Amino acid sequence: MALITPRTMSGVMELLPSDQIAFQAMLDTIRAGYERFGFLPIETPVMEFTHVLFTKTGGETERQVYLTQSTGSHQLQQEPDLALRFDLTVPLARYVAEHERQLNFPFRRYQIQRVYRGETAQRGRFREFYQCDIDVIGKDNLPLAYDAEIPAVIYTVFRDLDIGKFTIHLSNRKIMTGLLASWDIAPDQQILVLREVDKLDKRGKDYVQEKLAKDFKLNQSQLETMLSLIDLKNLESASILESLGKMKVENDAFNRGIEELSTVVKTMETMGVPATHFTINLAITRGLDYYTGTVYETILDEHPDIGSICSGGRYENLAGHYTKSKLPGVGISIGATRLFYQLKEVGLLRSAPTYIQVLVTTMDASLGTTYQRLGAHLRDAGIPTEVYFAGGKFGKQMKYADRAGIRFAVIVGEDEEAQGLATVKDLSKSEQFQVPQEELAGKIKELLAKA
Amino acid sequence: MALITPRTMSGVMELLPSDQIAFQAMLDTIRAGYERFGFLPIETPVMEFTHVLFTKTGGETERQVYLTQSTGSHQLQQEPDLALRFDLTVPLARYVAEHERQLNFPFRRYQIQRVYRGETAQRGRFREFYQCDIDVIGKDNLPLAYDAEIPAVIYTVFRDLDIGKFTIHLSNRKIMTGLLASWDIAPDQQILVLREVDKLDKRGKDYVQEKLAKDFKLNQSQLETMLSLIDLKNLESASILESLGKMKVENDAFNRGIEELSTVVKTMETMGVPATHFTINLAITRGLDYYTGTVYETILDEHPDIGSICSGGRYENLAGHYTKSKLPGVGISIGATRLFYQLKEVGLLRSAPTYIQVLVTTMDASLGTTYQRLGAHLRDAGIPTEVYFAGGKFGKQMKYADRAGIRFAVIVGEDEEAQGLATVKDLSKSEQFQVPQEELAGKIKELLAKA
Repeated sequence: MALITPRTMSGVMELLPSDQIAFQAMLDTIRAGYERFGFLPIETPVMEFTHVLFTKTGGETERQVYLTQSTGSHQLQQEPDLALRFDLTVPLARYVAEHERQLNFPFRRYQIQRVYRGETAQRGRFREFYQCDIDVIGKDNLPLAYDAEIPAVIYTVFRDLDIGKFTIHLSNRKIMTGLLASWDIAPDQQILVLREVDKLDKRGKDYVQEKLAKDFKLNQSQLETMLSLIDLKNLESASILESLGKMKVENDAFNRGIEELSTVVKTMETMGVPATHFTINLAITRGLDYYTGTVYETILDEHPDIGSICSGGRYENLAGHYTKSKLPGVGISIGATRLFYQLKEVGLLRSAPTYIQVLVTTMDASLGTTYQRLGAHLRDAGIPTEVYFAGGKFGKQMKYADRAGIRFAVIVGEDEEAQGLATVKDLSKSEQFQVPQEELAGKIKELLAKA
Repeated sequence: MALITPRTMSGVMELLPSDQIAFQAMLDTIRAGYERFGFLPIETPVMEFTHVLFTKTGGETERQVYLTQSTGSHQLQQEPDLALRFDLTVPLARYVAEHERQLNFPFRRYQIQRVYRGETAQRGRFREFYQCDIDVIGKDNLPLAYDAEIPAVIYTVFRDLDIGKFTIHLSNRKIMTGLLASWDIAPDQQILVLREVDKLDKRGKDYVQEKLAKDFKLNQSQLETMLSLIDLKNLESASILESLGKMKVENDAFNRGIEELSTVVKTMETMGVPATHFTINLAITRGLDYYTGTVYETILDEHPDIGSICSGGRYENLAGHYTKSKLPGVGISIGATRLFYQLKEVGLLRSAPTYIQVLVTTMDASLGTTYQRLGAHLRDAGIPTEVYFAGGKFGKQMKYADRAGIRFAVIVGEDEEAQGLATVKDLSKSEQFQVPQEELAGKIKELLAKA
């Protein structure tokens, strides 16, 4: 029989167990942070009906989606009526609209699931990746304090992830759009201007300036005003807010934007986000047109090249396609797969030790009962333990423990058994000691607690 | 704009947050059990290439699969070359063959992911459902002790899930196939006979007996022998093994089967599986033809109608389609989505309390800073806490806490604030007390520890 080459499509991240442990530790930390702030879990099906999924989005997203149908439907030459979710926002909108009457508002949900995009395969770009989202959805209205709570969550989560110093950049879209409106630039044009501003990092000032002058007829003074706003960074928030206040732009949105930003910053501080970990940055605009107020990005100080590792913002109405209720919200998303990949690339990821603490070796086939009993004894004490039933030479068993990163090897031979003892080899220190078998779990717990 | 009805396809389990919390608690318990036994996590992509996925399986499975392609590929009228995984076994085989050289054998993996089947929609049947699998894969060989470890894991996990008394039923396929071989029934016919035996519960003895006589030409004495084997249940293992030993069937497989079963039972006992929680049951055959030795099913004693809640067995070679290496293994699967659904149906699922312990209410808009500070104070102590920034009347805020199942409501008004106090309402007892604000977290931790 000819062998089939075992392989998966490109653009997916399939990990070996040691990396999977590290990745799960990352997801667990994010989940614990979300739960500590009182967000509730939901999960939605990987497939949605295409007519439900494609309401919100333009052609670009539609081209990048995975269509799905059962083999039966395919054989009947029907068109696929299902597609894999491409983000967690559209499924959230559908979920909230569908279950609206059973939900408690403000509805605070977290969702950690994979999403799918038919991207062109490219290093560091994924077709399947985890998103870890939180959103707070209000009914009719949602106080600004929630905009301030989001950075508090970001701060806690990234502090706990312990991947280096980071800065939360925040802005309020109303400031820029208000400024543009005061120059009589229409709303549909405003979003296009913001998209150009979003390219500053990639394309540089000259490109953006030229583009804005040409496509949107901004004059020199307007360009300078915009760029001076964008340059207002790496300063204390109070001084940026003061400069903004002095601008005296005759536009309600502009002034409301400053007010909102000022409230959010003050509230964040009360919530415990240290001034060292956030900055106002008006260049943050987020390309998506559904953000309407506060917007966030998060940058690793030592690795700005990675780009934003956690982004989001405030939106006016989550689910207008599905319900007449007005559902304003604010939320963020961490792209965990890409983040994990990038952290590995730049060497920021300490490889997580395995959670398996003990390997009970099996040197003497006649002592099988003892090995099994010791395994159960250790597990009953809550210590993750593997018994190496495969047997074989001592060197092979030690090599297995070593490759697996297991710290303690328990060895019982005829002599130890006769005396009711176990030898414990601490592979992290190349030390070994003997202990009465009934005290084994206690002793190992003691050593683990010291670490 | 016309509204789109927000809905998902039938056959998926989408939960409200309170149920999702209970479901996640179930998955967490299963994961913790698997990890305690030293199984390592892997995750595989939801999509596999169709030519990789469809090697093992016949037409039946192929008809029930979800085919997938990017919108780009669909527009070019290409045939879908991807499909959603329908179990975790084929992806495991592909994974082990693909990463063979980087894995540590025996390779012990757990995998908790959703799988997809294009089933006809039907109550209690799912098109998307979680499987929670463990397998131990050896290279060239795998000692029988691993067959005994599997029930030890099942025992631990279901004990911890605390969903009522259960019994692990086990058998060894070699006993039945050996018996059939001794009657000159060919291997390809043996599996068909076992499939009929598997229908005993559903179709009854008469149907099966008639079918076996007609289709496989079993004579009356042979039928009686088979049925007497199948009737050997609800007895002590030792006495069943003794009866089997007395049968004197001249067939190596038959006798090896008894020997293996006897070893597995003895080893399980040493590993701490109580005799009250398992039974030999030769009617357990598992329909799949790739099991070759030990097979398991697990039944809730009070709800046998639910069927097996955890099944699996030993197989000779995991990945013969992808690699020349011989990879014998043993494993089981828990169908968590179906299990959760069934437990809910029969009322066995205590609804899990929320993990959010405290709602900081916001009665006085001028005290926003205090509320935010108290929220941070509680979270820093590790207590999941929500601050109800939405404000509004006291009754509304209490109703929110109640609906969310949150135990403690913290109330600070002007008077409390002036004295540096917080009022805590314990909603589980309709009691309330006051505590200095700086002692709030300590006091709540104390009360939580008591529970």
